[in-house]
Amino acid sequence: MKTLYEGKTKNVLKNEADGSVYLLFKDSATGENGVFDPGSNSVGGSVEGKGKTGLIISKYFFELMEKKGIPTHYLGADIEKNLMKVRNLTVPKLEFILRYYTAGSMCRRFSLEEGLPFDPPYTEVTLKDDAQGDPLISERLCIMKGLLREGMYEEALKLIERVGKVLREELANMGLTLIDFKIEIGYDQNGKIYLVDEITPDIWRVRDKDGRIPDQIECGKILLERINKA
Amino acid sequence: MKTLYEGKTKNVLKNEADGSVYLLFKDSATGENGVFDPGSNSVGGSVEGKGKTGLIISKYFFELMEKKGIPTHYLGADIEKNLMKVRNLTVPKLEFILRYYTAGSMCRRFSLEEGLPFDPPYTEVTLKDDAQGDPLISERLCIMKGLLREGMYEEALKLIERVGKVLREELANMGLTLIDFKIEIGYDQNGKIYLVDEITPDIWRVRDKDGRIPDQIECGKILLERINKA
Repeated sequence: MKTLYEGKTKNVLKNEADGSVYLLFKDSATGENGVFDPGSNSVGGSVEGKGKTGLIISKYFFELMEKKGIPTHYLGADIEKNLMKVRNLTVPKLEFILRYYTAGSMCRRFSLEEGLPFDPPYTEVTLKDDAQGDPLISERLCIMKGLLREGMYEEALKLIERVGKVLREELANMGLTLIDFKIEIGYDQNGKIYLVDEITPDIWRVRDKDGRIPDQIECGKILLERINKA
Repeated sequence: MKTLYEGKTKNVLKNEADGSVYLLFKDSATGENGVFDPGSNSVGGSVEGKGKTGLIISKYFFELMEKKGIPTHYLGADIEKNLMKVRNLTVPKLEFILRYYTAGSMCRRFSLEEGLPFDPPYTEVTLKDDAQGDPLISERLCIMKGLLREGMYEEALKLIERVGKVLREELANMGLTLIDFKIEIGYDQNGKIYLVDEITPDIWRVRDKDGRIPDQIECGKILLERINKA
């Protein structure tokens, strides 16, 4: 298999024989100075088994999303090899964010208190560009830069709202309150939009019943236990 | 007179006897390392006569705006004292930006070429917060932070489009192509919106007939000459 793209926590591989595409879940975690943080843009370290945990959780949630009628790029998982088979889509360098409460960088950016509720949820779109600190980007600039076609921006925001409902309910069943999360989207030649990338503690911030915010490693352990029990 | 607020290029003064409010145009100019730049957040130096030039230009353009039916905070100018008398309004810490072409920080932020045209013009709103680098802010966060009331965000964007038309035409008459500019708005107790602050080369970026972008000091000289001839 050929590595098409090397990411911080995942690589994209292609089987050149049949054209199939795979995500390889790595053991690296984002963070800084030894503190893990899903919102960070740098790799904070490596945790044995993190890749496998992320793949098991992704498999669980992608299958749940498909069951709820949400189109995803998920085609199957080989847990032993840390590989997820996915649809071959165009994936723009964008992140779609949905917030149920204020938290993290947005509080610093706008001098807002942590934990203020958004109802309806608050959505934002950022350009994936580490050097520029993932700036907020508008629909018009996405189209100008050729990242999205007309209408896709709004469609992706509708998709993240649907994803949010499923995710929030499922995490609540596990005793976790969803604060915010980010997704990536991809589209096929016909312009159909799919939920892509991963669904793991790397994409969200949650609060547990004691009001604590577990980092992505700790949250992975909590979820894995729940999934194994289910 | 009491100084209510000390800004980088202007102070806000209040005559406590009658409650009237004034802007004092100072000789300082924004920029960095000795290079003047209206987009900068720091004071780059002082230029004798800059305050007076800014006031003369503001007087000219505010009177032009009023003639075109655009409500402004302008009530008169005392050129000798570098003072502009203004309406006493609520002025949220926001900047409304209109772009006819890509330029400057937006090109760096989104890896865009300089000089790509926007038609219709492109508008953005930023929070005035030097420490956070004046982040882009949405209507919803403006309302959440109590900066604007419902509807004012859209109304202000309509105002800047009207201001842009007048400004663009007038600068074109002076041989200058307007690239982008920023305004501030204020509102009275009834929620009526006014164009406030200043209208000087500190608020815009222009291109001259040779394709050069004059800094705000040079541009001030060009305009002063034209205004004195008129």
